[in-house]
Amino acid sequence: MLDTIHSEVIQHRIDQKTKPIGALGQLEKLAHHLALIQSQGKRDAVTNISLTKPTILVFAGDHGIAEEGVSIAPSAVTQQMVYNFLAGGAAINCFCRSNDVDMWVVDTGILSPIQTDSSRLIEQRLGEGTSNFAHQSAMSPETVQRGLQLGQSVAERVIDSGSNILMFGEMGIGNTSSASAIICALDDIKPQDAVGLGTGINPQQLAKKVDVVAKGVERCKSVTPQQVLAEVGGFEIVQMVGAFLAAGKRQTPVLVDGFIVSVAAYVATLIDPQCRDYMIFAHKSEEAAHQFVLNKLDAQPLLDLGLRLGEGTGAVLAMPLLRAAAEFYNTMASFEDAGVTV
Amino acid sequence: MLDTIHSEVIQHRIDQKTKPIGALGQLEKLAHHLALIQSQGKRDAVTNISLTKPTILVFAGDHGIAEEGVSIAPSAVTQQMVYNFLAGGAAINCFCRSNDVDMWVVDTGILSPIQTDSSRLIEQRLGEGTSNFAHQSAMSPETVQRGLQLGQSVAERVIDSGSNILMFGEMGIGNTSSASAIICALDDIKPQDAVGLGTGINPQQLAKKVDVVAKGVERCKSVTPQQVLAEVGGFEIVQMVGAFLAAGKRQTPVLVDGFIVSVAAYVATLIDPQCRDYMIFAHKSEEAAHQFVLNKLDAQPLLDLGLRLGEGTGAVLAMPLLRAAAEFYNTMASFEDAGVTV
Repeated sequence: MLDTIHSEVIQHRIDQKTKPIGALGQLEKLAHHLALIQSQGKRDAVTNISLTKPTILVFAGDHGIAEEGVSIAPSAVTQQMVYNFLAGGAAINCFCRSNDVDMWVVDTGILSPIQTDSSRLIEQRLGEGTSNFAHQSAMSPETVQRGLQLGQSVAERVIDSGSNILMFGEMGIGNTSSASAIICALDDIKPQDAVGLGTGINPQQLAKKVDVVAKGVERCKSVTPQQVLAEVGGFEIVQMVGAFLAAGKRQTPVLVDGFIVSVAAYVATLIDPQCRDYMIFAHKSEEAAHQFVLNKLDAQPLLDLGLRLGEGTGAVLAMPLLRAAAEFYNTMASFEDAGVTV
Repeated sequence: MLDTIHSEVIQHRIDQKTKPIGALGQLEKLAHHLALIQSQGKRDAVTNISLTKPTILVFAGDHGIAEEGVSIAPSAVTQQMVYNFLAGGAAINCFCRSNDVDMWVVDTGILSPIQTDSSRLIEQRLGEGTSNFAHQSAMSPETVQRGLQLGQSVAERVIDSGSNILMFGEMGIGNTSSASAIICALDDIKPQDAVGLGTGINPQQLAKKVDVVAKGVERCKSVTPQQVLAEVGGFEIVQMVGAFLAAGKRQTPVLVDGFIVSVAAYVATLIDPQCRDYMIFAHKSEEAAHQFVLNKLDAQPLLDLGLRLGEGTGAVLAMPLLRAAAEFYNTMASFEDAGVTV
């Protein structure tokens, strides 16, 4: 659990800034949260929030369920988009450039390996896509364990390289089906309420998606989060769960993206509740079930821009709000400093 | 009116980017809007949105109505905060630093002049605070005209210096009372619905505020926007109206801050409807009547962070979203570029 011993001192520092109490709304909560995290284990509360080397890991993986036609695009697009990430042409690349965020792409198991010289690709493949969870387990329990370890180790490497604020993104045709199945299996929510339009399917595809999600969920009665991941998960989702667990252990905040990343975050909290303390929720996605997951996590996201792309785009777009929160915490004058007599 | 001749070409360019149609939500509308503005009068639609020298003008003025005790702070705080702006210690300074925005402070008529060597202060004083509009006109019609011209000229100077994206902010103890009175006078809204907590007054102050706003509004039957400004306006509000009019004439987009700036924007649209085309709404303030003004302007703001500070803080916080929209419009790969087969 996050030690709240410095909470009052941090709040007092915020309340002494030259503004009415609470007038900076969510940015004040954000500054408080970041300061509390960075004050862990210290004798005094920090007076300076440092955000060093903000980094996003984009986890890519393919899904057997995609062969059911539950997405607007075929699985081949996962690999094509990974090439696009490595060439700097995707939305996530644009937002990383405009917001000064480092980016790495993790191949967790797309259909076929990437041929590239790019140093931005990290290969930790768990297979050539998952199995089709409408008919069988997506992966073995051993693969889940290995995926959790790999996700944990890649997050630790980024933290060890000097990043103290992480973001995770994802790419994987079919992964909203997997994410929807995971929350149906873990919670009392029906497939028809948990399944959405993804990146834009038609009503026929939506009905099919509800149907295949239901098939996967039927195999998940009374099982652990790890077993749910084996039944209906995805390689990129499993590795993100591991990465969230690592961030929690290393007391490093993670800016959480939309629906799929939030589902991974939720699974991580079921495995280790304390990692919730290090999550900051970036945005509310257009995917209907995202609000359900946000409620389960008691999360109030920073942005609501009608995004439904994934890749971590929402997380990277929220990064300037963290910098703004840090800047006002660090350098804004107090009433006393400024001679303001309220 | 904004020429929409290039609208389809711009939308096609956005739709060919490597993402599902519409998946970037409000950022797509933002990119479209910026590209349309920058394509005005050009033979072809721009393929590059440039955002040069983003600049905020913070307009400060004092209000005679403040002597009625309708605010949490006395009028002296306006000047103290202007000194704080010039020393770099206020929230708006912090956000300008973290988001790389230039800032100028305009003294439109605070109680007593600022003593400073700072080159960041622009003095165009209309008086030593307005008169108390509970009892008499806030200013003369001639002062309104002069204020509109001064606001227009300062915005033009900033545009002439190379800034093609503006933000306006304000500081003035008592100015939510003035802004509330303006919208009551211009629209069919009652003082009790238009008056809010400002930066945090108590219930007794709120009742008093409703009462004095009603007194000012009573003098505004069947009058022009300029006459409303004379009866119940503020020096900083009048100059902001002028600045919005200039931005419209010069086809320069303005990122509009919260309640008070939005009221100035609204008055500007009543004087010259075409300036609405150049407004981008940054955030929804906690001040209740802001939603009313946003509705009148048919505006969908980008952020909703529970801010209620003013100074232009919401506008500057939204600036990175404009940069992100420009970056994806300018550099994101098309399906063809990236070999993505959707």
